[in-house]
Amino acid sequence: MVQYSRKLDSTFGALADPIRRGILERLGKSDAGITELADAFDITPTGLKKHVGVLEEAGLVTTEKVGRVRRCSLGPRRLEDETAWIDEYRRTLEDRLDRLGEFLERTKEKR
Amino acid sequence: MVQYSRKLDSTFGALADPIRRGILERLGKSDAGITELADAFDITPTGLKKHVGVLEEAGLVTTEKVGRVRRCSLGPRRLEDETAWIDEYRRTLEDRLDRLGEFLERTKEKR
Repeated sequence: MVQYSRKLDSTFGALADPIRRGILERLGKSDAGITELADAFDITPTGLKKHVGVLEEAGLVTTEKVGRVRRCSLGPRRLEDETAWIDEYRRTLEDRLDRLGEFLERTKEKR
Repeated sequence: MVQYSRKLDSTFGALADPIRRGILERLGKSDAGITELADAFDITPTGLKKHVGVLEEAGLVTTEKVGRVRRCSLGPRRLEDETAWIDEYRRTLEDRLDRLGEFLERTKEKR
């Protein structure tokens, strides 16, 4: 449970940045090198590497040194737990709205 | 687009903490006061207020002063955009896996 919770912390944290979400969208199409990604997002390779580090930490990206280039590709995580958490939360909200609706119906009947 | 992106930043950032996710789950059941929430999560009211501030900033929680108590309830945001982003990302991944599968099939046929 604690481990599940930590995983959600690092993934949601990793997703809380437009460049990091952009990197994931870009790598969804094909693998890419650090310089290529830095150019695409108009930031320095050092800045790009930091973002990739956060994504790697969260298991969303993996990197591999190929000759002189570091290739980035999507990691093993597929955001299943994050989807599950959001779905569960939205279900709670809908249940609550349903109960509110029923309450209003009953109030109307009594009038 | 930039505004949409900023909204995702603040929501994913707000979700990147177990206490903040816990507060949302708790408020999904019913509204609650600051002291009540602080007791439930075993932190100081000051610490709790900071977390509520982050959730309020992201539109996930609203607070209202009722007499001497500050009541917290769920805000207007329902995480639709966050779900949409994650869904779109997972779709990209599935497309890519499908293409990889087709490629492997074709390679097998040639053998």
